[in-house]
Amino acid sequence: MADVTTEPTQPPAPTTDHRPTEWVLTLSCPDRPGIVHAVSGMLAQHDGNITESQQFGNPGSGLFFMRVQVETHAAREELAAAIGEVADRFEMTWTLDVVGRPVRTLIMVSKAAHCLVDLLYRERNQKMPVEIVGVVGNHPDLAELAEFYGKPFHHVPVTAATKSQAEDRLRELVDRLDVELVVLARYMQILSDDLCRDLAGHVINIHHSFLPSFKGARPYAQAHERGVKLIGATSHYVTGDLDEGPIIEQDVERVDHSRAVSDLVALGEDVERRTLARAVRWHAEHRVLLDGHRTVVFH
Amino acid sequence: MADVTTEPTQPPAPTTDHRPTEWVLTLSCPDRPGIVHAVSGMLAQHDGNITESQQFGNPGSGLFFMRVQVETHAAREELAAAIGEVADRFEMTWTLDVVGRPVRTLIMVSKAAHCLVDLLYRERNQKMPVEIVGVVGNHPDLAELAEFYGKPFHHVPVTAATKSQAEDRLRELVDRLDVELVVLARYMQILSDDLCRDLAGHVINIHHSFLPSFKGARPYAQAHERGVKLIGATSHYVTGDLDEGPIIEQDVERVDHSRAVSDLVALGEDVERRTLARAVRWHAEHRVLLDGHRTVVFH
Amino acid sequence: MADVTTEPTQPPAPTTDHRPTEWVLTLSCPDRPGIVHAVSGMLAQHDGNITESQQFGNPGSGLFFMRVQVETHAAREELAAAIGEVADRFEMTWTLDVVGRPVRTLIMVSKAAHCLVDLLYRERNQKMPVEIVGVVGNHPDLAELAEFYGKPFHHVPVTAATKSQAEDRLRELVDRLDVELVVLARYMQILSDDLCRDLAGHVINIHHSFLPSFKGARPYAQAHERGVKLIGATSHYVTGDLDEGPIIEQDVERVDHSRAVSDLVALGEDVERRTLARAVRWHAEHRVLLDGHRTVVFH
Amino acid sequence: MADVTTEPTQPPAPTTDHRPTEWVLTLSCPDRPGIVHAVSGMLAQHDGNITESQQFGNPGSGLFFMRVQVETHAAREELAAAIGEVADRFEMTWTLDVVGRPVRTLIMVSKAAHCLVDLLYRERNQKMPVEIVGVVGNHPDLAELAEFYGKPFHHVPVTAATKSQAEDRLRELVDRLDVELVVLARYMQILSDDLCRDLAGHVINIHHSFLPSFKGARPYAQAHERGVKLIGATSHYVTGDLDEGPIIEQDVERVDHSRAVSDLVALGEDVERRTLARAVRWHAEHRVLLDGHRTVVFH
Repeated sequence: MADVTTEPTQPPAPTTDHRPTEWVLTLSCPDRPGIVHAVSGMLAQHDGNITESQQFGNPGSGLFFMRVQVETHAAREELAAAIGEVADRFEMTWTLDVVGRPVRTLIMVSKAAHCLVDLLYRERNQKMPVEIVGVVGNHPDLAELAEFYGKPFHHVPVTAATKSQAEDRLRELVDRLDVELVVLARYMQILSDDLCRDLAGHVINIHHSFLPSFKGARPYAQAHERGVKLIGATSHYVTGDLDEGPIIEQDVERVDHSRAVSDLVALGEDVERRTLARAVRWHAEHRVLLDGHRTVVFH
Repeated sequence: MADVTTEPTQPPAPTTDHRPTEWVLTLSCPDRPGIVHAVSGMLAQHDGNITESQQFGNPGSGLFFMRVQVETHAAREELAAAIGEVADRFEMTWTLDVVGRPVRTLIMVSKAAHCLVDLLYRERNQKMPVEIVGVVGNHPDLAELAEFYGKPFHHVPVTAATKSQAEDRLRELVDRLDVELVVLARYMQILSDDLCRDLAGHVINIHHSFLPSFKGARPYAQAHERGVKLIGATSHYVTGDLDEGPIIEQDVERVDHSRAVSDLVALGEDVERRTLARAVRWHAEHRVLLDGHRTVVFH
Repeated sequence: MADVTTEPTQPPAPTTDHRPTEWVLTLSCPDRPGIVHAVSGMLAQHDGNITESQQFGNPGSGLFFMRVQVETHAAREELAAAIGEVADRFEMTWTLDVVGRPVRTLIMVSKAAHCLVDLLYRERNQKMPVEIVGVVGNHPDLAELAEFYGKPFHHVPVTAATKSQAEDRLRELVDRLDVELVVLARYMQILSDDLCRDLAGHVINIHHSFLPSFKGARPYAQAHERGVKLIGATSHYVTGDLDEGPIIEQDVERVDHSRAVSDLVALGEDVERRTLARAVRWHAEHRVLLDGHRTVVFH
Repeated sequence: MADVTTEPTQPPAPTTDHRPTEWVLTLSCPDRPGIVHAVSGMLAQHDGNITESQQFGNPGSGLFFMRVQVETHAAREELAAAIGEVADRFEMTWTLDVVGRPVRTLIMVSKAAHCLVDLLYRERNQKMPVEIVGVVGNHPDLAELAEFYGKPFHHVPVTAATKSQAEDRLRELVDRLDVELVVLARYMQILSDDLCRDLAGHVINIHHSFLPSFKGARPYAQAHERGVKLIGATSHYVTGDLDEGPIIEQDVERVDHSRAVSDLVALGEDVERRTLARAVRWHAEHRVLLDGHRTVVFH
């Protein structure tokens, strides 16, 4: 997977005309005095005008997080070199990108269309900064939908016997298409631990959530039996432990006793798709930073 | 505990002047044709004018639920006898009460004030149909608050050694004060299975809830570590299995990464108190019917 | 426009086999004793089993509202005749339909796709009980989207000079396609008073709403200038007074100071499409009854 | 009214022991390059460790806003002098305070208790950083409540004839009690333009809001007639134009057709008190900055 930190896949040429480029810089490092000063000084030296900036220090983890949008005429190489120097001094992890550059995104689906149709719509109509470079389905059902939006659909069936081959195919797609983000849009297969590790921080999943939570295979039926009054969804980064990675966004929808299981499922689809869309947008805008098992979301 | 179904503790005298009394009748029974017709016919024969009515049939449990508000000049005995006949025919469980009659309520607390202050305020200022007849605390901290609102405060400490005595004292209070509803307003002791069983359907609890749920002793700290984006509360009837009785109401509050554990606790208090207040109001208005492990809430 | 009350356009044949048909009956009339009894008695005589029922009496307007779902083997003619008799007695307005029958719906659009794409998705994937029989656009922009979902697109441009012709064309479409519901899905033209009156109760509109409200031509820009913290949407029936008909549903989305006008517009689209979708679903399920200028929504 | 910027009323002595003091600095100025660098450099020179920082540049107004929490051993005078130099250079408006210092607050009420009881509870139990130094009522009704919480109650009746005297009394109280914030907690009198101007930015009001809005004397009755599905509240700074000052926070509560006007009022109270409580907390934490007629809220 392309690592945007040091070697962005698709470096947009810095503009050379009179208008500056707007960059987004994110960083995290051990918290200590002088970080903001060092960063802002470095940006000032390169004629940078900060247009948006957020910081957060977590006393628990001892880490400091920062997201800066800055306008400057400096070329990428110049800017990256300057950031690199500060980063070395403070042991920073950092990323640099052009504001609004579409993140190359691969969507994985099974049969449910609700998340896919929503993401395709938002890419086209709401200028969500992603470029959906392909759709992978372990079932062929959503090929037609993908193709309506002009997206190549890759049918990669998965069985116990072919799982490893399927993941090879996925890796090959990620590679060949310079994929920066994989979205599991109700993809009903579990990725292997190896793949999760290799793509860590670059795979977003969505799943239902309930108060209390239900772990079985029929969660909506369980929630219905239990008579819950809220159904919810959680979007998170995928780690080896499926459904347990760092949470990016959560939301709920109200239900009552009169709702059948099928109603809960339909309402669940609504809350899933809007929760996933927010998580993807914030990730693509470089608003989500990792703080161990938690996320810092600068929205 | 007073059982409002057959022998209401405080039967308000039906008015004998020209204005009719407004009653609320709730019932549940096995679902089959003719129930609504039988009930509405019986009410019509007693000069009843239905002002509000809701029904719900649960195909899952095969049960039918109904809540009717009806104005009539009929006396309680006459009305109850007529309902009893229909009830026998359809194997109904039912309750009959005067609309707006304050339900005699005992509140149990430990040290946290937020739910108590809210209920006391609502009884006085928002005409929530409860009459708080006393406050029981296993700690003395909230005595002053109770007394400001003119409520007797009973300090009933609980230790492992005295738990059984404390419950005897509670039973005695419930008896002597004709208590119809016990509200556990952040009462941090676990009631015995026996007591839960004896008061089943007459005890409402509130507790925090999270997506996902955390079972340990420090749930807010766990939720913070996990980086949840929503914190919630669940109000439910108490059964033997604490925190697992039929859910009456749930709600959530949004949080972000910048919130400390103490912020989560403060926000949790807000969502707890409003969730509990809704559950108590709906119960006191006879809007909550039991459907096995679920509730039907006609709000 | 087809009037579902007395002469449904597409009467689905009542099933003649062993399974009963499930009907939905809605009615309103002056409130007085005996209505529920009369209705339930009439249904019982025709072997009806009530599966869901809601009533509401509005002391303000003096009107009573009822929605009943009932299973019966009775034929439509038989049922309608029986209802008619009761209706005459109580001066009822009523409708009768088969539960889940798709309501023949025409969607009108301009250039914005968000509501259209959502309704098309829900018709196909969430079994919203509508059959979208066509899409009318005063601009051609959304023709391709309509056609992807297999819907005929009618380009009916509107200018000051051609407005009357355009409405004739619309009336002709409503007639020819047996349209029961017209949805203005961000249709940016104002319908004439005559057309509003003729289609009263059969046209649903969606528009933005704010606290406070802004009446001008650039409401999102005004809301931005004013620094609102919530943006909202209102879905309502269309009457002569545009944007002021009986409200069916409202919802809001939270914003903060950092949002640009374009962000508000994008978030506004989200809240508009889900608010409109709920209103259309409830209408199509015969859950919305008119109470003068208010709606009674039995959801 | 005390002006916290240059001459804080109750300057808490900077600690002289080994632990640093945590300060909160807010500032706004015309946006141009170098601001963050200058501020962070100045803080670094005084051994400051930034623990929380947020910035926002509004392209519309051309203004830049910043809120910084910083730990340092520097004394107030030293810090203020250093800030003053930077402020001069960038034409900044700024405030400096110790994090968590209780803001001296006067609450004004009429007869409605809901907002007052909530603020008194939060001051005591949730450590909201305010010190309520008195309660002013134009009616005596809430004296007992104020006194239960140990707060002096000042009965200042207002009639057309005595309005000017009443405002003199209020000014005297503000002066004598070193009041920094006045909260209109359902205070039903209109302050004079002069008083609004003199206390600008230091008076917070709460009022109901609806979609659409209703301007008359009986807004809940109007909202009920109109059949709204949401009722809301807006908390804002008071300017000459009552109910139209810069918005700090808004929230809504869902209602349906079955709610009577009195229900809307009770629900309105809930949403009013929680909206006001948030606005007061954010103000007291120096999270609200003025951007012309808008607010920047760094929460």
